[in-house]
Amino acid sequence: MTMAPATTTAEIDVLTAAASDAAPIWRAADAGERAGWLRAIADALDTHIDELVTIADRETRLGETRLRGEVGRTSGQLRLFATVVEEGSYLELTVDDADAVSGRPELRRQLTGVGPVAVFSASNFPFAFSVAGGDTASALAAGNPVIVKAHSGHPDLSRRTAEVVTEALRAAGAPEGSFALIEGREAGNALVQHPAIQAAGFTGSVTGGRALFDLANGRPDPIAFYGELGSINPVVITPTAAAARGAALATGLVGSFTLGVGQFCTKPGVVFIPRDAGFEASVAEAVTDATGGQLLTDRITDAFPAGIDALLGSSSVELLGRGAPTETGAQPVVLATDAAAVTADPEVLLAEVFGPVTLLVRYDGDDDLHAALRAVPGSLTATLHSEEGDEVAATLALLESRAGRVLFAGWPTGVAVTWSQHHGGPWPATTSLHTSVGATAIRRFLRPIVYQDAPAHLLPAALRNEAIAALPHRRNGVLRVP
Amino acid sequence: MTMAPATTTAEIDVLTAAASDAAPIWRAADAGERAGWLRAIADALDTHIDELVTIADRETRLGETRLRGEVGRTSGQLRLFATVVEEGSYLELTVDDADAVSGRPELRRQLTGVGPVAVFSASNFPFAFSVAGGDTASALAAGNPVIVKAHSGHPDLSRRTAEVVTEALRAAGAPEGSFALIEGREAGNALVQHPAIQAAGFTGSVTGGRALFDLANGRPDPIAFYGELGSINPVVITPTAAAARGAALATGLVGSFTLGVGQFCTKPGVVFIPRDAGFEASVAEAVTDATGGQLLTDRITDAFPAGIDALLGSSSVELLGRGAPTETGAQPVVLATDAAAVTADPEVLLAEVFGPVTLLVRYDGDDDLHAALRAVPGSLTATLHSEEGDEVAATLALLESRAGRVLFAGWPTGVAVTWSQHHGGPWPATTSLHTSVGATAIRRFLRPIVYQDAPAHLLPAALRNEAIAALPHRRNGVLRVP
Repeated sequence: MTMAPATTTAEIDVLTAAASDAAPIWRAADAGERAGWLRAIADALDTHIDELVTIADRETRLGETRLRGEVGRTSGQLRLFATVVEEGSYLELTVDDADAVSGRPELRRQLTGVGPVAVFSASNFPFAFSVAGGDTASALAAGNPVIVKAHSGHPDLSRRTAEVVTEALRAAGAPEGSFALIEGREAGNALVQHPAIQAAGFTGSVTGGRALFDLANGRPDPIAFYGELGSINPVVITPTAAAARGAALATGLVGSFTLGVGQFCTKPGVVFIPRDAGFEASVAEAVTDATGGQLLTDRITDAFPAGIDALLGSSSVELLGRGAPTETGAQPVVLATDAAAVTADPEVLLAEVFGPVTLLVRYDGDDDLHAALRAVPGSLTATLHSEEGDEVAATLALLESRAGRVLFAGWPTGVAVTWSQHHGGPWPATTSLHTSVGATAIRRFLRPIVYQDAPAHLLPAALRNEAIAALPHRRNGVLRVP
Repeated sequence: MTMAPATTTAEIDVLTAAASDAAPIWRAADAGERAGWLRAIADALDTHIDELVTIADRETRLGETRLRGEVGRTSGQLRLFATVVEEGSYLELTVDDADAVSGRPELRRQLTGVGPVAVFSASNFPFAFSVAGGDTASALAAGNPVIVKAHSGHPDLSRRTAEVVTEALRAAGAPEGSFALIEGREAGNALVQHPAIQAAGFTGSVTGGRALFDLANGRPDPIAFYGELGSINPVVITPTAAAARGAALATGLVGSFTLGVGQFCTKPGVVFIPRDAGFEASVAEAVTDATGGQLLTDRITDAFPAGIDALLGSSSVELLGRGAPTETGAQPVVLATDAAAVTADPEVLLAEVFGPVTLLVRYDGDDDLHAALRAVPGSLTATLHSEEGDEVAATLALLESRAGRVLFAGWPTGVAVTWSQHHGGPWPATTSLHTSVGATAIRRFLRPIVYQDAPAHLLPAALRNEAIAALPHRRNGVLRVP
């Protein structure tokens, strides 16, 4: 790892000016061209996988298997967005023909790129949520140049990935200024406040995200800041589910909260379990075999035991079990407490601890459970393990109010990249109503524009009659798919 | 006009609690039910039109003809949103079936109401952008209870409209807590910061909107604040257009900037004209016949001459002409300056003045024009008057970058309420990428939620197979319209 040279303000001015020059070219690029640019990046990542994974493993300690899989996820994500661009629904083409009787003019609406986008990458997914990750892919797909602020946890990988992306775009014919990388916290702060930047994507901590959110909203001309900040991801297990499949649930839970050394944003951090169901014993048993590992950075490594100590500092919390000891890494930990304690002190007991730890919360009946659920902060996911015949309507309504994805009979750590995925939720899970994973992530970087009574030759290509007829569109209120 | 009793904090607690109780009922209501509630409000407004217009005319001085038309626009808007709810695209139903090979789970996504919405009403459209206006209609259509902060400019009308809305909803079977009205600036500030409120809509000044935007974003759990703040609405006239139809353009311009006594948010406030085209003389001539009138409030009445004086305070600005004198109201005013002066001092020369005044800006060639256009702030609209054969690509690109609606050969003051309308633009026109007029205004008050591997009986009604098949939806990437 070489020392990170912070990007200067003068350099940011140069990079944002180049991005501003590239923006109209990205906006005007037709679907085939823009999809080609996205696929060129995907192909380049796949071509360079060995080299990139070697650097990533050295900087993140996540291991080759996981990292190779993550490169595949990242190139797959770029290819999904190429498909989204070609499919064309994302343009939301809408025409209302002129109405001679009322004198209403002709209106043609489409979505178009907002302009240069700032992306702040995460530490825990050095490919999928980093330099060429989902924020970058969706911002480019929307027709915008991107400037990424590298995460300090993997600087060499960030630089090498940026080179691969830049070379791929150049070779594919994308304009100069399409993509750039900056480094340093102050540089990131300057970037989100730069007049040329029109929107920002972020994945990281509540503290870091809130600071950037405040900078984005404090601008003379505020911009949209799409942050994914923090998530406790509640799980509820009903008494009948615990009785019917307690051992399997315990094994599943341990597998989920220790996946990626507990560093997934969808890690189940709090699990509501029926008291006296024997489920605690099953979890305590299952965790003994669980292996931990090295955490991503020294800062996260230091914060992990401190976070556990903070929870154990509450007299209501006890240590239920630990995983296999590790010499240098984090050992998985299961804690336990009561629902009444969570209801009384949610800020301490429901604080997110990054790493392989989860908190079991014993509840006595629905009233006890629901009071505690009302104290759960907004999350990316909420999971319900119940059996047919369980009365779960009220519990489900509470989980729905607190999360963007509600799971049944599974675990939240996997996040499929599809058309329907939603990876977002009420604050602090995300700072907006939008997703950062899946096809609709493209929405974040688009703005509507409508043309009134425009002569055909002055319309953007996608809004001319022949283009509209070939793509999903709405005309005079009627949605049509060609 | 009776004295406005400010709503207390305790009253706001009661109203927001009732709204929170009503929220799940609105969310769960099926399309027919929710559309019925919207149409009930529309019908009630039409039924009470005489009484409402009488109060409105007394409080706003806008005249019966305009006000009757505005009631029709408002009830029509509610009916459009009823249609939007029934059509069902707004739900964005999306299903990805489980994939046994990859182990990918089933995902079903829909949009759902965010929860109780705060609406801050405007002074200049006492029906269409007030108590039962577009923000209220779109928030209800999305499935959310609404609490409106009345504009102090028409308190009696606000109260009576709120009674009509409340009675209509009650008679139609909507739950208690569906709708409420509050009064007073401090009450409004408390409302936007109240934990129960999940989003806010606003139409008004840059100063007032920015203050509320900052409160919404400064919350411990920030909420989306959809404000429409201010707009200068640039118009560009090319030399050939001025030569070909100067007199008609002058008449059209005067009609547009004096419409509603110049109190439209889409009023053309700055008009770029070719120097020496004789167009100035045409405008000076056309304005002499224009009638002014009384402005909405005493504050606006006082601010109007002050705004004109501020413009005339610049040595580059001259008075070009005035409309017909009025005894008590505002007299239409046309000012003129040079493009170079605008480029040099945009903050003063492009300040929005509410009322019947516009500023002609003479330009010498495209370079001069484009430099000034780059200084134009974000606007709701931008208008280009050109002739076939004019080279306008660069000018058009600048206008597109500055506005959400680009008009050709018309005037911006009319805003059709349709599926394709976009009434929004870069800051300060709006605080978000969304529209406050037209079908897609509903988007602002919806959040996505996805269900993973849910048993059919625990899915929301709209996400079950039979409902999906009957509505526009995407399944495994393919968009289908039944």
